[in-house]
Amino acid sequence: MTRVIIIDWGTSSFRAWLVARDTGAVLDTLPSGKGLRAMAGQSFPAYARDRLAPWRNEAEGTPPVLMAGMVGAPSGWRKAAQPPLPVGTRDLAAQVVPAEGLAKAWILPGAHVRGADGHVDVMRGEEVQVLGALALLGRSDGLFCLPGTHSKWARAEGGRLVDFATFLTGEMRAVLLGHSILGEPATADAPFDPAAFDQGLAQAATPGGPLHHVFSSRGRFLYGALAPEGVASFLSGVLIGAELDGALARAPDARTAPIALVGGASLQAPYERALTARGLRVEVIPADQATRAGVLAVATDLGV
Amino acid sequence: MTRVIIIDWGTSSFRAWLVARDTGAVLDTLPSGKGLRAMAGQSFPAYARDRLAPWRNEAEGTPPVLMAGMVGAPSGWRKAAQPPLPVGTRDLAAQVVPAEGLAKAWILPGAHVRGADGHVDVMRGEEVQVLGALALLGRSDGLFCLPGTHSKWARAEGGRLVDFATFLTGEMRAVLLGHSILGEPATADAPFDPAAFDQGLAQAATPGGPLHHVFSSRGRFLYGALAPEGVASFLSGVLIGAELDGALARAPDARTAPIALVGGASLQAPYERALTARGLRVEVIPADQATRAGVLAVATDLGV
Repeated sequence: MTRVIIIDWGTSSFRAWLVARDTGAVLDTLPSGKGLRAMAGQSFPAYARDRLAPWRNEAEGTPPVLMAGMVGAPSGWRKAAQPPLPVGTRDLAAQVVPAEGLAKAWILPGAHVRGADGHVDVMRGEEVQVLGALALLGRSDGLFCLPGTHSKWARAEGGRLVDFATFLTGEMRAVLLGHSILGEPATADAPFDPAAFDQGLAQAATPGGPLHHVFSSRGRFLYGALAPEGVASFLSGVLIGAELDGALARAPDARTAPIALVGGASLQAPYERALTARGLRVEVIPADQATRAGVLAVATDLGV
Repeated sequence: MTRVIIIDWGTSSFRAWLVARDTGAVLDTLPSGKGLRAMAGQSFPAYARDRLAPWRNEAEGTPPVLMAGMVGAPSGWRKAAQPPLPVGTRDLAAQVVPAEGLAKAWILPGAHVRGADGHVDVMRGEEVQVLGALALLGRSDGLFCLPGTHSKWARAEGGRLVDFATFLTGEMRAVLLGHSILGEPATADAPFDPAAFDQGLAQAATPGGPLHHVFSSRGRFLYGALAPEGVASFLSGVLIGAELDGALARAPDARTAPIALVGGASLQAPYERALTARGLRVEVIPADQATRAGVLAVATDLGV
């Protein structure tokens, strides 16, 4: 049986799966490892060789390694291109770069988009998730929401990624909680508070925009209408609501078909709640599955 | 000649003027002093007595002292009320509190507003600026923009403050530059870059909302379309643009009359540029003048 090693190497984690080439079945998984931030000054080839040793045996023939994510950024192993849209799996396969220092290993490119007005947006890792999600859904068109530190909304047409936009939602929540007056009363690691989240979501639906709406957490807190343990969830509601409303303003046809939510476990619930509250239909696709399906499709196009 | 001491004591500075009661003429000004943040653990009465000593002479009769701003917050000298809207100078005069430990000294109240949906917004210091600006303009109605760390947009009708909204614009810019990925390439203390500011302003006018638009600074920087020394001005353009568009969404009649811009010197230019770019007419009122005119009106109502 032919096997492929798939790695999702991002800013905050390294994750690897040994996958059956034909069925896509996961044969083995490594414990999560160091993301790019924790790799500062370390050798990428040495770290990868060490982590992947259980799966790579030169005598028996080593499975190929395909890596996606920020590992292809200038701060990663080796810079990979970010081709302009539209981008399909063949376009990604055409621009992989060898991962220097490790045999039979490649880094996938990202993608970028330019607007007529000078706007530029960038991604590394989500393009392959969108293409993988398309394959899992058996479709060639769709609107995708990929929540995260830098959430992405993407559109596919004819089996290729044709548009996307980044929203700073996750990082914004972190900097407001960690470094602004709004975070001062917030309880660290408070559990998700659905009522406070819904209040933030409702606040985001009123006129004024997120710069105004986030400050409502201050007023509500000072007047006893928001408990310290609800502040983080309230801000999540405001920011996710603002992300949704901003993304929908860019996609007026969003209500005609379900939105594919490609997310990890922790963000899936609040995003599903927010999308449903805005009257949208949602299809959930686990982000890991989407990554693997997308990378496998690139591996096929690449012939490895 | 009767004199009044007017103090604007906020989070980041203490400013004081000796003013002629009848004409409002500034007779003397103290060098700027410690804001609330720098007062931690220190005695407010002792600091005020020391700073105001040149103007207070018990033998000759001491001028009354009226203070506005965050000095009336729970973290300040003594907590003053925040009466609900509508609020005029008489309502403020009715709720001043004595500044304990200093003779003939009072702290002015702030204001708060509640929405039907649980929203609460708060201010301390801007209410008196709006009422002072009304007096300076010789009007009883108007829409006011008061830029700052926490920018305020306020509406006056019949000589009273009837609505306002806070925007986290200034603090948002500071936390994004200081603590997010967007600030990484930014040059510290770069001078204002009008071209980059205008690009941010134009970006803010496209669909997507500020969570998306701020990330454009990352894409533009990575693709050479925004220089490191332009990042801060680009973000200012995006955020001030988002503030304006949010405020205008709350005030559909904003285009029928000029907007009164009540600001300090450093923010006046970018806000005037942004308001003009959005096709709005602007009247500029220096914030210090507005503070003094508002406090003087309260002093009259108070009979001191």
